[in-house]
Amino acid sequence: MADDGAAMARAVMLAQRGPVWGPNPRVGCVIVAADGRVLAEGWHQGAGTPHAEADALSKADDAGVDVAGATAYVTLEPCTHTGRTGPCADALTVAGVGRVVFAVEDPNPQAAGGGEVLRSRGIDAEFVPDAAAREVNRRWLRAMELGRPYVIAKWAQTLDGRTAASDGSSFWITGEEARAHAHHVRAEVDAILVGTGTVGTDDPSLSARPPGTDEPHQPLRVVMGTSATDGAKVWRDGNSLSARTHDPAEVLSELWRRDVRTVIVEGGSVVTTAFFQAGLVDEVNAYIAPALLGSGPTVVGDLGIGTMTDVLRGTDVTSTRLGADTLVTAVFTKGP
Amino acid sequence: MADDGAAMARAVMLAQRGPVWGPNPRVGCVIVAADGRVLAEGWHQGAGTPHAEADALSKADDAGVDVAGATAYVTLEPCTHTGRTGPCADALTVAGVGRVVFAVEDPNPQAAGGGEVLRSRGIDAEFVPDAAAREVNRRWLRAMELGRPYVIAKWAQTLDGRTAASDGSSFWITGEEARAHAHHVRAEVDAILVGTGTVGTDDPSLSARPPGTDEPHQPLRVVMGTSATDGAKVWRDGNSLSARTHDPAEVLSELWRRDVRTVIVEGGSVVTTAFFQAGLVDEVNAYIAPALLGSGPTVVGDLGIGTMTDVLRGTDVTSTRLGADTLVTAVFTKGP
Repeated sequence: MADDGAAMARAVMLAQRGPVWGPNPRVGCVIVAADGRVLAEGWHQGAGTPHAEADALSKADDAGVDVAGATAYVTLEPCTHTGRTGPCADALTVAGVGRVVFAVEDPNPQAAGGGEVLRSRGIDAEFVPDAAAREVNRRWLRAMELGRPYVIAKWAQTLDGRTAASDGSSFWITGEEARAHAHHVRAEVDAILVGTGTVGTDDPSLSARPPGTDEPHQPLRVVMGTSATDGAKVWRDGNSLSARTHDPAEVLSELWRRDVRTVIVEGGSVVTTAFFQAGLVDEVNAYIAPALLGSGPTVVGDLGIGTMTDVLRGTDVTSTRLGADTLVTAVFTKGP
Repeated sequence: MADDGAAMARAVMLAQRGPVWGPNPRVGCVIVAADGRVLAEGWHQGAGTPHAEADALSKADDAGVDVAGATAYVTLEPCTHTGRTGPCADALTVAGVGRVVFAVEDPNPQAAGGGEVLRSRGIDAEFVPDAAAREVNRRWLRAMELGRPYVIAKWAQTLDGRTAASDGSSFWITGEEARAHAHHVRAEVDAILVGTGTVGTDDPSLSARPPGTDEPHQPLRVVMGTSATDGAKVWRDGNSLSARTHDPAEVLSELWRRDVRTVIVEGGSVVTTAFFQAGLVDEVNAYIAPALLGSGPTVVGDLGIGTMTDVLRGTDVTSTRLGADTLVTAVFTKGP
C-alpha cells in the first residue's frame, strides 16, 4: 500500500496551484497504484474547469494508463452533484479505482455525501482528516459552513488605532511592504467592499495591484450605502456593485447570490463597525504602523462593549513584520 | 597582533554580565598579549564596584600575569575621572599596557577624553566603533547624550488602541507571556512612573516580578500628580517617590538627580500624553492584544496633530510575538 500521508501531501501541493478566489474550492488529486507508483495527478483550476478527480482521470486516460484498483487521494470529498461538470463520485466509480482517501468532508450540502455514495458502490472510501488540506480552503470552507461570504475586515492603523489624521488625511500610514501585501490579499478575494463615505473622501480605485504581477484577478468592487458617488473611480467599468443599504447581512446575501465566497471590508469606520455590530466579521487584517496620531477616526466605533470581560478577542493569530509595520491577523467568528 | 574584532566581541559578552539598570554603563574589558593569548578579563558589576579595566587588571595582578605591552580591549572609552573608583586611564598607564582599543566614546563630559589622555602618555589608543558595544548601553548612552533619563512609554492595548474598557476595567488585555515580558523590562530600568489617576484606579504594586527570578532589582516607584493617593500599595516601603507636579521635565530633572538613567512611564493616558506633548518619550513599548473594545481610554490623548504629514513616527522598530499578543517597540526621539 502506498504511503497515505505522502500522497495526500502531494495532493495538497497540487490543490495550491488553483486560484484562491472564485466560488469553487482548491482541490488536488493523486492516483497511486498498489505498488506505490503515481499513475496520474490533477487539480482544479477554478469554476468552469474540470474538478481535480476528473482532471487526474482524464490525464490517466490520455496517457493510456489503467487506474483500475488504484487509490485516489483527494484533498476534498468527491462531489455527488452535477454542476458545470458531472459528479466526481461517478467518474471515480466508472474508472474502477479500488480505494478513495479524502482529507476534508465537503461542506456543500448540494455536493456532500461522496464518501457514502462510493462506499455504497463497494469502493473503500476513507475520510482521513488533514490539517494542511483544510488550510488550503480555510476561508472557503468557513463561508460554506456559514452560508455567506467570509468577511475580512482590513485596515491600516497607527499604534493608537487611528486610520487617518483629524483632517481625514491617511496617505500613507503604512509603508510600501505593507501596501504591497494588501494588494496580494486583494488578488485572493472575490470582492472588496467600502462605504460611500470612503469613496467620497478617498476616491479609491479598489483594484488589486500586487507588485511584480501582471493583470491579476480583479475582485468585484462593492460600494455600500446610500450617498451619491457618481463619477467616482470605482464605477470606471462593469466590475462594480452599488449596495444601497446600511445592513451588512443584506449586502452579504446579495454577494452570496453572485458567487462571492470571500470579501474584504476596507472601511471606513462606520461600515467596519456595522459589520462588527452584526457579528459578521470573520477575520481582521490590521496593518499597524509604529506611529501615533492622538486624534482622528478610529479603526472601529462603539461596539456596545462596557467592560473588559466583553472584549472581542481574536484567535488563530498571526503577526508578520512588513518593513517597519506589523500585520496582525486574527479570526473573530467561532469555527465549528 | 590579536584579532581586534574577536577580542572586542568577547569584551561585549563580558559587558553583558553587568546590570542593565543603575547609573553606570555596562562595560567589558579583555587584555590580550601580542601573541594573541588572553591575559585577563573583567567587567563592571554596577555602581560602587570596580570598573571593567580595573577588574581585569586586578585579576591579572592576582594571577601574577604581566600585562606590559599588551592590548586592552574595552567596550567603552576608559574614564578619566575619580568617582567611587580612580580613573581607568591612569590604571591602564600604570599597568604598562601598550595599546588600548575602545568601541564607544564616553558620552559623560566628566569622564570623557580617556583616549586623548592615553595617547598623550604614549599609549596607542584607538577608537574602533562597534555596533554591538553601542547596543549594550543603548538606553544609557542616549540618556547621557540627553542629560536626562531615557523615557520608555509602555502600555498594553487592544488593536483599536484602547488601554481599558469604558468602565475602566483593564484586567487583562494581554496574556501571560506579554505580562511576564513587561516584568522583565521593569527589572531592567531604574524607575517606573505612573500618574495619581492610575494609582487611584488600579492601586498597582509597581514591582518587577519576572517569572522564575528571585528578588530581582526593584525600580524606584514614582507617582506623578497632585491628587491624594494615601494608603496606596506604592507607598508600602521607602522605594517610592511622590512627584507633585504635572510637568514631565521637572520630574525627569528630579529623577536625574537621583541617578535614574531609565524610566518606564506606564500611564495612564493623561501622563503618557503629557510626556509625548513635551517631546520627552524616547521609546514606545506597545503590547498589542488581538482584541477590540470600540470604546474606553486610548493609549494617548490629543497630541495637537491635525494631518498625516505631522504623524509621530517611530524608528528602530522591533516586533515580537508573545503568546497571542505582539510587542511593537519603536524609538521616537532622534539620536545623534
